[in-house]
Amino acid sequence: MTVLTGPGLLFVVSGPSGAGKDTLVEGLKARHERLLYSVSATTRTPREGERDGVDYFFLDRDEFERRMAAGGFLETRDYNGNLYGTPRSFIDEALRAGYDVVSKPEVNGALAVKRAFPDAVLIFIVPDKFSHLRSRLEARRTETNEQIAARLEIAHDEFTFVRRFDYLVINEEAQPLRAVDDLEAIVRAERYRIHRYPDTRLKELEDS
Amino acid sequence: MTVLTGPGLLFVVSGPSGAGKDTLVEGLKARHERLLYSVSATTRTPREGERDGVDYFFLDRDEFERRMAAGGFLETRDYNGNLYGTPRSFIDEALRAGYDVVSKPEVNGALAVKRAFPDAVLIFIVPDKFSHLRSRLEARRTETNEQIAARLEIAHDEFTFVRRFDYLVINEEAQPLRAVDDLEAIVRAERYRIHRYPDTRLKELEDS
Repeated sequence: MTVLTGPGLLFVVSGPSGAGKDTLVEGLKARHERLLYSVSATTRTPREGERDGVDYFFLDRDEFERRMAAGGFLETRDYNGNLYGTPRSFIDEALRAGYDVVSKPEVNGALAVKRAFPDAVLIFIVPDKFSHLRSRLEARRTETNEQIAARLEIAHDEFTFVRRFDYLVINEEAQPLRAVDDLEAIVRAERYRIHRYPDTRLKELEDS
Repeated sequence: MTVLTGPGLLFVVSGPSGAGKDTLVEGLKARHERLLYSVSATTRTPREGERDGVDYFFLDRDEFERRMAAGGFLETRDYNGNLYGTPRSFIDEALRAGYDVVSKPEVNGALAVKRAFPDAVLIFIVPDKFSHLRSRLEARRTETNEQIAARLEIAHDEFTFVRRFDYLVINEEAQPLRAVDDLEAIVRAERYRIHRYPDTRLKELEDS
């Protein structure tokens, strides 16, 4: 891994199931060579088309619990009967090497990441109408009505934490690229926030 | 003036003389229809090519002081023997009508604007090398060596306030468009910061 100047920034993109996070993060990754994706681990069954090590690390419950006990996860959560977790070492190493990292945990996971990395930038994604969540989950045809009802209830619970995030991006169904542009602007702008500059960098600039 | 949804945002672009603020703000204005420029007033003599009402409102000292006494300025300052000020009513009206506004006062003026509009976004501009300030001021051929020396001393004094700003953008001599892209990203990203959303807007989203 090439060492770049200064530590990288960690962007955490979260929000309810059906908000369109996966597509947005795909779009963002495609535009940024320097932005690495932190792949989550899960014990849930892969959905059609999902690839191990790309979309998730699909682990059986024994292996997940073994890694969890060894401190291998930044955060873990039990969601609809499955375990999810954010592997710690990849993020640590990528940030130290100067790469920006984007991670896509559920909302509680995002808050846990913020506790571990207070400098992380938390971005909450919602559709322009909450009612779109149900239609998108139904269109996936991967869950029962009971599971969808549970997810929608969770979505409202999750939204109560929106003020703990740094940004709220609204993913408009009619203009999907717009939210990717918004994410791209956030990734670019955050680099210039004044608290990102150490005193040594300011001194160096003034003396140059 | 068409009324848009929600109040606009006020962006204050400042930094030492010779940092390249004028060119950057020109570039930014050209990209944003909805971004209005707040023209400052001054008693100084116009430089070659500067137009009244476009670059500055050029006022004689009596007229400036009359308006100042009437509360017409958001902030005023005495700089190198000339008075400068930010007219208040234009910014008030534009923000209320939902337009974003960009203003370009000196550093002390920027801090005064922040006191009047705590939600304003303050952006400090510096060249990639401080030594470029001198060469740019010399290239203008509009000031004596004494005036340039005074401006450079002021530049260092101004930089001590950089941590009161929200962003620091470095204007690289070799890549002038890059800083315009940075400003554009900041203008876009700020709209999505969580504190920009009133509770009523969040409730409306959740109920939609």
